Amino acid sequence: MEALEQRIRQEGRILPGHIIKVDGFLNHQVDTQFLGELADEFARLFDVSRATKILTAEASGIALAAVCSLKYGIPMVFAKKAKSDNIEGGLYQSQIFSYTYKKTVTLICSKDWITADDKVLIVDDFMANGQAMRGLIDIVKQAGAELIGIGCAIEKGFQDGGADLRKDGYDLKSLAIIDRADENGFVFRKQ
Amino acid sequence: MEALEQRIRQEGRILPGHIIKVDGFLNHQVDTQFLGELADEFARLFDVSRATKILTAEASGIALAAVCSLKYGIPMVFAKKAKSDNIEGGLYQSQIFSYTYKKTVTLICSKDWITADDKVLIVDDFMANGQAMRGLIDIVKQAGAELIGIGCAIEKGFQDGGADLRKDGYDLKSLAIIDRADENGFVFRKQ
Repeated sequence: MEALEQRIRQEGRILPGHIIKVDGFLNHQVDTQFLGELADEFARLFDVSRATKILTAEASGIALAAVCSLKYGIPMVFAKKAKSDNIEGGLYQSQIFSYTYKKTVTLICSKDWITADDKVLIVDDFMANGQAMRGLIDIVKQAGAELIGIGCAIEKGFQDGGADLRKDGYDLKSLAIIDRADENGFVFRKQ
Repeated sequence: MEALEQRIRQEGRILPGHIIKVDGFLNHQVDTQFLGELADEFARLFDVSRATKILTAEASGIALAAVCSLKYGIPMVFAKKAKSDNIEGGLYQSQIFSYTYKKTVTLICSKDWITADDKVLIVDDFMANGQAMRGLIDIVKQAGAELIGIGCAIEKGFQDGGADLRKDGYDLKSLAIIDRADENGFVFRKQ
């Protein structure tokens, strides 16, 4: 998506360790008007008219999911990150390894809010190794719900998450895939 | 706000320890259409046309802030919860005690996204002891920004957070104030 690539080129910063900061419009300060354009793009890529729920993971996916939810007129659900001593019954649980925090976290989601009747569009702001996406997919499977597709704003194409999900047959669409980010700037994958 | 009180009466659950669950529409599954009505109500209560930023705290305030941001046409910023060993420079920091997690957490916000030029509306989904609100107010003060007002969806009126903030002169408006929640149901404050 040209507008997103442009925005990353203009405002994105590359920190040591291939960390990409886009916290001026996506995941700290949030330009929700612009997220509206991303939501419109997902609506072109997926059959959102069939979707009954938007699913994301806290915290930084919530704003994008909220904008999609408002635009498509369906509720959103955000899976929470729980410490293992803090988990009640009635929950789907999926353990994922967080590279940000260097530890295993458990994504939890109440069985009340995703059921076998649901058709779920997963969205998230960022994907690197795809652990959070795997956790969300796992929740959809545990619920016996239908997965409509997986929409990601920015994918780090130089990590394996996206490639692995596509190899496994998931309908993953990323609006910008960064294949290289270094002192020469950003290189995006042609889509 | 009548529609919100009705929704709490219909869907809210009261758990031991005065815990109020409204996770079917506010903070786990999220009815963003309904949040749009809350955002409209804030727009009646505050001069949002003067606001330049919506500020909230992760994670559960993000959806409400995103909907307000989209409706008012201004960006939102969410303060993050950091562990003390994880804090870089260039940040406002405010230590708050989290009763949910029974520990001190540090709210952080980049100095890039709230500045002395900003006029800030703080919004959050829930308030009990007001610790998170205090942290957000502290960030606005550190920035030297103007505080337009504080909008809260649901206030637990039987805890001190709201009363203390009003005593200190803050323009806090809560769309529903729960004065009692027990086996007889919810009692709301007349406003």
